This record gives sequence, C-alpha cells and structure tokens, in this order.
Amino acid sequence: MNRPHVFINVAVSADGKMDTFERKGSAISSERDKDRVLRLRAEADAVMVGGKTLLSEDPKLTVKREDLRAERVARGQSPNPMKVGIVTRADLNPEGNFLNAGPARVVIFTTSQTSKSQIEILQSHGADVYIHDAARVDLVQALDTVHALGVQRLMVEGGGTLNFEMLRLGLVDELTMYIAPMLFGGESAPTAVAGSGLVRGDAIPLKLVSVESHEDGGVLVHYSI
Amino acid sequence: MNRPHVFINVAVSADGKMDTFERKGSAISSERDKDRVLRLRAEADAVMVGGKTLLSEDPKLTVKREDLRAERVARGQSPNPMKVGIVTRADLNPEGNFLNAGPARVVIFTTSQTSKSQIEILQSHGADVYIHDAARVDLVQALDTVHALGVQRLMVEGGGTLNFEMLRLGLVDELTMYIAPMLFGGESAPTAVAGSGLVRGDAIPLKLVSVESHEDGGVLVHYSI
Repeated sequence: MNRPHVFINVAVSADGKMDTFERKGSAISSERDKDRVLRLRAEADAVMVGGKTLLSEDPKLTVKREDLRAERVARGQSPNPMKVGIVTRADLNPEGNFLNAGPARVVIFTTSQTSKSQIEILQSHGADVYIHDAARVDLVQALDTVHALGVQRLMVEGGGTLNFEMLRLGLVDELTMYIAPMLFGGESAPTAVAGSGLVRGDAIPLKLVSVESHEDGGVLVHYSI
Repeated sequence: MNRPHVFINVAVSADGKMDTFERKGSAISSERDKDRVLRLRAEADAVMVGGKTLLSEDPKLTVKREDLRAERVARGQSPNPMKVGIVTRADLNPEGNFLNAGPARVVIFTTSQTSKSQIEILQSHGADVYIHDAARVDLVQALDTVHALGVQRLMVEGGGTLNFEMLRLGLVDELTMYIAPMLFGGESAPTAVAGSGLVRGDAIPLKLVSVESHEDGGVLVHYSI
C-alpha cells in the first residue's frame, strides 16, 4: 500500500478531553500552541478531518498566516494544504467554511449514503468526490488515493472517531498532544481517541520522542508509532 | 472547614483512559511507577476510593512492601494507612480485600440506602461506618470527619466519579498523573475525571509543578490546584 506520512495532532485538557460534555468546541490551546499547530498545518500537503467534525464544526482548515502561506508558495506548494473530508453521509453546507475557505483543493471521501444530487452540489463547489461502495469510507483506499494525488505529509485533525480508526488500522506515524493545564471532567466529554476502543492486549504501543513543558503550564508530548 | 491535604494519583493511557472499554482493571503503570505509587500511599495517613471501584475491584489498598510498612511504624504510624470508602450503597463483600486486608483501620461513609443488617455486618468486621442522611455521601462532611480522626494527608485513588466530585467541590490540592506510552481508544472507556463534567467557564485551572519523562516512555505530570 502507498500512503503519505500521517501525523495526528490533538489538544486536550489534563483529563484527556478534547471538549467539554457540551461539545461546543471549547478553546483548549494556548496562543503558543495555536502557532505550533498552524506551522504543522503549513508543513502538511493535506489536512484530514472526520465526518462529525466536518458537520458540527465546519472548519476552515486554512493556514491563517500570510507569511506561512507565502513560504508554502515559495516552496512551490499551494497557499493552503489540500483539505480532505472523510464522511459517511456528506451533507455539508455548500456555502460553508470547509468547501469555500481557501484557495484550497477539497477532496471528499464518502459512501453511497450521500445522495447523487448532494454529490453534484459538492462537485459544483469544486470538490473532488470519491464514493466508496461500503457502509463506511475505506481509509486504506482513501490514503492510497490522496498519495496518488501527490500528498506526502498528511495531518489528521480529528475528531476522536477518525483518530481511532486511523490508529486501529495502523495508518498513523506520529502523534503530538498538547495537554492544557485545566480539567473538564465528564464521562460523556469527547476524548482524543474514541471509537469502539481496543482490548488491553491490542493496545497501541507508543514511542516517546519528546516532552516539553511551557511556562503557561501546557505540556507538549510527541510520540512516534 | 477542616480537611486533610488531599492528593489524587492516576495512571492513564496517552489518550486519557484509566482502563479499556472492557473495564477489567487493565495494567497501565510501569514497575517504576508502581513503586512511586506505593511510596505515595506509604506517606499517606489515609487512602480513599469511591463506590464503583470498591464494589467492582475490591482493592486491598495496603502498603505492599515490608520496608515501607516498617518505616511507617518507625514514624509512629500504623503499618498501613486508614482505608476510607465512599459508597452510596455499601454492599461490600464482608470477606473481601477492602474490609480484611491489613492490618488497617477501615472507615466507610455511606447513606441510608445501605441496609441496617449490612451496616451491622460491616461493623462486625471492624469498620467504622458513618451514615449520611442524603442521596449521596457528603464529601465535605466526610473530609471533616477523617480530619477529626487524625488524617493529615489523604490520597484519593479513584475512580473517575469520586475524582470529579472531589475536584468539583474544591477539595483537592494536588494531582499526579502517570501517562503510559499506549493508546486504548474507546468512547466508553473510563477517564480519570468523569462524573457529569464542567462547562468551559467552570474548567478547573491547574498549576504545572513538574514533568518527568521515563526511559520506558512513561510521562509523569504533577499539578497543584
């Protein structure tokens, strides 16, 4: 199988939550960490998000700094990385951020659960749509496709279900995690790696690459897999 | 209010889980970390656990090293810390570890949901039982009581519901967290601070005291509150 180098980046509270139980998109990263994430994104050929994140947050996924976009262009890249959406039923807002913020190439992997008329709408907004004839998008095939489209470095920006599936399938090379000095609690609050979960014997072992502590109390942990 | 100095210790996977979705009591700590936890326990006057942990795991909560017990005795302490159970309905096994492993003083805080006959059984096994006339044990009152019983340093060893309630009520001074280099995933896997959770504006701020990385890939984070 051909696939890009894949890295996941997450920001969590000290108790491992990506958001509170309210799931309103809580601010977690410090200014310093936001800058790091923007640089990571600027170094990626593509940024990938899962369906729940796409439909509930409709993220822009662009490089929100003129100088970093200029550096990309100077390297011969597009100003923004390709945006890749993994979504079983792609009922995205045609006028929303994911489809329109840019300029950026947009690639959507979906299933036949998305209606033909919706696919036409997505295509008319410039998205390349790949339809997998299965209950869910085949992530191995999707990575093979984006690799064929020229993606060497792929950044996965969640959510927890996509992170889990990518990890479970052995498709991830690196994980960086910013741990904010705060506690959210909440049995139902979303965690960085969710999905169905693994039994103890199948737990994914990590190699610790580095740990960095920030003056504001944040901790940045970098693992390879 | 009078209360002891309270510290929580947890061991989690890198994705913030205290156990897998199977909740079978997964091994997470390294040998080095187990030793650290044993020392922490040996320095405590009392060890506290919540009802779910008590009923599902029936932990011994003793100091499992002869030399550390001897050090306690040399300091004029009991060989093992007091064991404190917080349990709405105290249907503990009378022949189980929590009540019998020792020697250790056992104190149980419960509610009138525990039957009189069960309370007599617990008392006949040497436990001091305090009954709160409420839907749940009043943690503020319980800490006042254990303080009056001579407890200066109290270690809370979970689970996630008790951790959350203690933190929510502002009853915790320190949090140490061992992060193991492994991923469990699982939307339903238990996290270190669970309960109902807080909204973003009520998130509990932490002060980072120290971060330590171990050769085996473990990361030990110490916060004060």
